[in-house]
Amino acid sequence: MPHSRRLERIAQILGKRLPGLTLVLENIHDPHNVSAILRTCDAVGVVHVELLYTTESFPRIGKKSSSSASKWVDRRKHTSVEKCYGVLRGEGYRILATRLEPDAQSLFECDLTGPVALVLGNEHRGVSDEAAKRADGRLYIPMRGMIESLNVSVASAVLLYEVLRQRLAHGSLTVPALPSDAYDHLLQDWLHR
Amino acid sequence: MPHSRRLERIAQILGKRLPGLTLVLENIHDPHNVSAILRTCDAVGVVHVELLYTTESFPRIGKKSSSSASKWVDRRKHTSVEKCYGVLRGEGYRILATRLEPDAQSLFECDLTGPVALVLGNEHRGVSDEAAKRADGRLYIPMRGMIESLNVSVASAVLLYEVLRQRLAHGSLTVPALPSDAYDHLLQDWLHR
Repeated sequence: MPHSRRLERIAQILGKRLPGLTLVLENIHDPHNVSAILRTCDAVGVVHVELLYTTESFPRIGKKSSSSASKWVDRRKHTSVEKCYGVLRGEGYRILATRLEPDAQSLFECDLTGPVALVLGNEHRGVSDEAAKRADGRLYIPMRGMIESLNVSVASAVLLYEVLRQRLAHGSLTVPALPSDAYDHLLQDWLHR
Repeated sequence: MPHSRRLERIAQILGKRLPGLTLVLENIHDPHNVSAILRTCDAVGVVHVELLYTTESFPRIGKKSSSSASKWVDRRKHTSVEKCYGVLRGEGYRILATRLEPDAQSLFECDLTGPVALVLGNEHRGVSDEAAKRADGRLYIPMRGMIESLNVSVASAVLLYEVLRQRLAHGSLTVPALPSDAYDHLLQDWLHR
């Protein structure tokens, strides 16, 4: 792609990135799940995701075309729930853990138009007790079937698209999304990826 | 599980099944994708999905716990687009193909409260020309990223949960969902699964 077309395309996509939306991936181990999650993050416009790998290693993501979304979604590493949530709260995020607890709210009854970090847990263990307790709230995706669980990449997508839907409906996507200094920084950075 | 508890649980889940919602899986080949799709179908309450395998074989689904949702979602086989759509139209479904065409509607602008069959295509080729043309309409999931595609199981989940969300918001889920003869038939059938 010629430089000017590439610049135009990158500027266009960056103009639609959504600040105030991130996922916390807590020990999600399957590389296919992580790839699919990053692909959905790119599609919705997430700038960066938070990696909270305390018991597992972040999986090696393949080089398949479906995985190349990882190139466009930045990753920030955190070494503990406390530190991760501290950084996010300092940036103004409300932290919501996806876990079915007595006080959990249905996804469709949550207002997700403000800055929000959504915590997703390991495929087998779900969100840890600590990550659930320290969060500002807990939410669940309504399920009505015999099997009471969803694939974690599917769950991420349902969450992310509900955020996008609410923000589109709310009209909060009509103004330029990223602050201009973040936009400029990313534009230079992306041109060299 | 004792018989009475099992009966109660099955009756409860069947009472929440959604008639008037199905997916047409057109040559989706990856068993993980098909498993994840059936798991989401179960979670949302889809009674049966339509298999339209004209160029590929329906994949063998593993026996992992995550795949056992396939036990609770029936599958109907069709040998051509024409026959499949004929059956669905005879049952009152509006058929919407997920494909980006000039006339396609955004998912979030589609009214999905009525009976609807959503067509999903093969991982590489997408929905075929024939399946797209013969459908009653085309819809797309909004994407704002560098990579302009989603994993097919992720796309299915975004679609299915938008249908569920609209129907919950619309209040069309407050009446018993399945007709009583279908309910009775499925109840007997499920008890022996």
